[in-house]
Amino acid sequence: MDIPRKGKARKMPERLVIVGGDAGGMSAATQARRRRDASELQIVAFERGHYTSYSACGIPYYVGGTVEELKTLIVRSPEAFRKNNDIHAHIHHEVTAVDVGARKLTVRDLENSVERTEGFDQLVIATGATPIKPNWPGIDSDGVFGVQVLGDGVAFRRWVDEEKPARAVVIGGGYIGIEMAEALKVRGMDVTLVDRSRQPMTTLDEDMGTLVAERMRDIGIDLLLEEKVISIESVNGRANAVVTEERAIPADIVVLGIGVSPNVGLAEEAGIEIGPSGGIKVDRQMLTSADGVWSAGDCAEKFHLVSRRWVAIPLGTHANKEGRVAGINIGGGYETFPGVVGTATSKICDVEVARTGLNESEATEAGFQFVTNTSDSTTRAGYFPDTRPIKTKLVVERQSGRLLGAQIIGEEGAAKRIDVLATALWNGMSVEQMLNLDLSYTPPFAPVWDPVLVAARKAWCLVEEKMQVDPE
Amino acid sequence: MDIPRKGKARKMPERLVIVGGDAGGMSAATQARRRRDASELQIVAFERGHYTSYSACGIPYYVGGTVEELKTLIVRSPEAFRKNNDIHAHIHHEVTAVDVGARKLTVRDLENSVERTEGFDQLVIATGATPIKPNWPGIDSDGVFGVQVLGDGVAFRRWVDEEKPARAVVIGGGYIGIEMAEALKVRGMDVTLVDRSRQPMTTLDEDMGTLVAERMRDIGIDLLLEEKVISIESVNGRANAVVTEERAIPADIVVLGIGVSPNVGLAEEAGIEIGPSGGIKVDRQMLTSADGVWSAGDCAEKFHLVSRRWVAIPLGTHANKEGRVAGINIGGGYETFPGVVGTATSKICDVEVARTGLNESEATEAGFQFVTNTSDSTTRAGYFPDTRPIKTKLVVERQSGRLLGAQIIGEEGAAKRIDVLATALWNGMSVEQMLNLDLSYTPPFAPVWDPVLVAARKAWCLVEEKMQVDPE
Repeated sequence: MDIPRKGKARKMPERLVIVGGDAGGMSAATQARRRRDASELQIVAFERGHYTSYSACGIPYYVGGTVEELKTLIVRSPEAFRKNNDIHAHIHHEVTAVDVGARKLTVRDLENSVERTEGFDQLVIATGATPIKPNWPGIDSDGVFGVQVLGDGVAFRRWVDEEKPARAVVIGGGYIGIEMAEALKVRGMDVTLVDRSRQPMTTLDEDMGTLVAERMRDIGIDLLLEEKVISIESVNGRANAVVTEERAIPADIVVLGIGVSPNVGLAEEAGIEIGPSGGIKVDRQMLTSADGVWSAGDCAEKFHLVSRRWVAIPLGTHANKEGRVAGINIGGGYETFPGVVGTATSKICDVEVARTGLNESEATEAGFQFVTNTSDSTTRAGYFPDTRPIKTKLVVERQSGRLLGAQIIGEEGAAKRIDVLATALWNGMSVEQMLNLDLSYTPPFAPVWDPVLVAARKAWCLVEEKMQVDPE
Repeated sequence: MDIPRKGKARKMPERLVIVGGDAGGMSAATQARRRRDASELQIVAFERGHYTSYSACGIPYYVGGTVEELKTLIVRSPEAFRKNNDIHAHIHHEVTAVDVGARKLTVRDLENSVERTEGFDQLVIATGATPIKPNWPGIDSDGVFGVQVLGDGVAFRRWVDEEKPARAVVIGGGYIGIEMAEALKVRGMDVTLVDRSRQPMTTLDEDMGTLVAERMRDIGIDLLLEEKVISIESVNGRANAVVTEERAIPADIVVLGIGVSPNVGLAEEAGIEIGPSGGIKVDRQMLTSADGVWSAGDCAEKFHLVSRRWVAIPLGTHANKEGRVAGINIGGGYETFPGVVGTATSKICDVEVARTGLNESEATEAGFQFVTNTSDSTTRAGYFPDTRPIKTKLVVERQSGRLLGAQIIGEEGAAKRIDVLATALWNGMSVEQMLNLDLSYTPPFAPVWDPVLVAARKAWCLVEEKMQVDPE
């Protein structure tokens, strides 16, 4: 990109504007700054909320009280960005329109209700994701909360502290829904989780999701599955029940955890191309279809390395990496973002859940033929105190034996083993190659065959079709 | 191999003899059995000790009392092998000579002091490793213990229970030495560990080993480094001090943790080729230089995939894998053992230590030019309760940025992250490729940049020589 500047004896610094002050945008900003100082590159960020660079994934733990102080969730404040990075981040500022051709955008100061126009040379769109908000009657009642931005968590905790709700209904059994259900249970509420699917965590296969459901019921969460919410009942504007096709569930507080979709309205109106996943289309360098306009984070689509489809996966770790890549390129470096393999993990009380790659339905949709195998092992040597169960399911391509996906359910020490499987998957390893991997062994940390190796070995037997079970 | 059998109308079963009844040998036996039943293959195993298939790595935990019951360390008894696998395992039987040409071996029944000759068609040599036993005066005194076979652990614990030693001296600061020092400390003894090196755990670089030394001292272990033992003093045949070049250290019990070497005497005398590492030379299928003679476990050398040297690394996890490979091939299948990358891990009280690949001196010896980087992170999100420190050192090839080795020191949740690094290393990944790996993220299990990614990112900066530090 080369924006000519006329009539200037001394070259003006280029102007980089960041739309959205969280992980993706601010990673881009700091990386660009690292490579180009303020004499070369002026960096301004607009954030419509009250906070910059925070851990949205920490919200359920703040709500539940595991994390006491809100400020610990904030990675860097606008003051710190100004002081440490010479980046000017404006909170309560919403960018409402972008004119790519004119290199101008309209920004609204939400505190003073004033709109102004700002110029840019390069732009990073990091507008994140928007919670899916169904059209149910009563959904805007008081006491109904989303869990997307840090402000949601603050409002939520204030409501809990002041109103002392006794009965909570969580709608949606995805990661956030489940983590919120646990958080509210920990705070002593009666918790009901409603989901229209046959199992919570639909990113897992049904056999594994069913195990999660059992464990949730074990800890006293009332789980209503295959039940569709139709409205939220309220009295004096305040929610008091969630109504499904089957019943009305009394509620003093309602949490929406139905999922999110990429927040692409601004980009779309600016004529920037949206990809098949519904996220902003980006190239390897995180450049959008518009010259000098980049995107990073939940609003940008990601290439799934196993399915070879473009997907929308909202996750802070991707946002950070994508922002880094965009920032390096803006700063004059060269860096590409390779894509994702769909790794995710969650914890509900003592139960650890993790997945990577493709589950059965995703593998089918991508056109793979596969076998699956589920194996049981322990997190430490079987004879070691505090050894915990771990169940590992592998989805493996027929004939080639290539790992396509993995799911883990277990207890302490189980979930993080997904990273080994994700790294194997990333490298296109077959289960035959994997079963000889030199993974660490000592009784306090693993059996002599690590659960990952056990899983690979058992799956290999299936692929070989020589026998059903591989002996110890 | 084709041994002609004359004058038999009905084909006799082939005879497989296993020398050594622990991980390598018995894995081979069960795998071979799985593919060929007793009408085809007779399987006999000779073990000179009292136990078959046990966890030698569990011995320090049995000695320390973390593991209460000896029997839990035993994976499968001779009775179970007979009943479940139709494998005839004889304990207290030492094979003293092998005649490969004649397909015969001499075995000594140690209980009855009787020698006999047995025939074999195929043979697995799984004689393990022998503790290095220096020629010090007094080394055979009562109260001096090795920690190699399960019987050592039993004798050790009996001595501790009966003699109630108050002062223990551990000689050698490798994995076993350190784990034993911890075990004895846990049992309330005054523990001194002596090593002639400048640091414990010489498989780590000195900077990392020094940290282990600090932590050992923190928990009250008296660490005497760069000190050479010259003798063991005894009174009435019973050890009462370890004498170094500097001093005499009073001792009621002495543990030898100086290391082991492949136990290859039997193989060598049989004319089987020994490799450059001092272990039995094997091919991809775990076949030795002699037709129909296989080897697996600590006595067999292993190919190191990074250094491309043959090495002797005694570790149960390798023994199991190698035995499996040998057994599949004996059973008529086809399987190869790819090699190792030198992964190892240990725990000393709250400190977790792990390593994989090459350390600095190994990388130099292999002819690599490299940079190193050590980064600090946390096992959970920084703001999450019970988050623990983790320090990760990477050894990275210059220019290519390829990962050559990694070392981790940290607390709960740190060590097992070495497996991701081992898997990356196994696949020849560069730190640039690694830093975008899709590793799992949720606040209870990891920061948004997992410590592995932080390490890769920091090392990448160094490789790029663009800047010293990559910003958050």
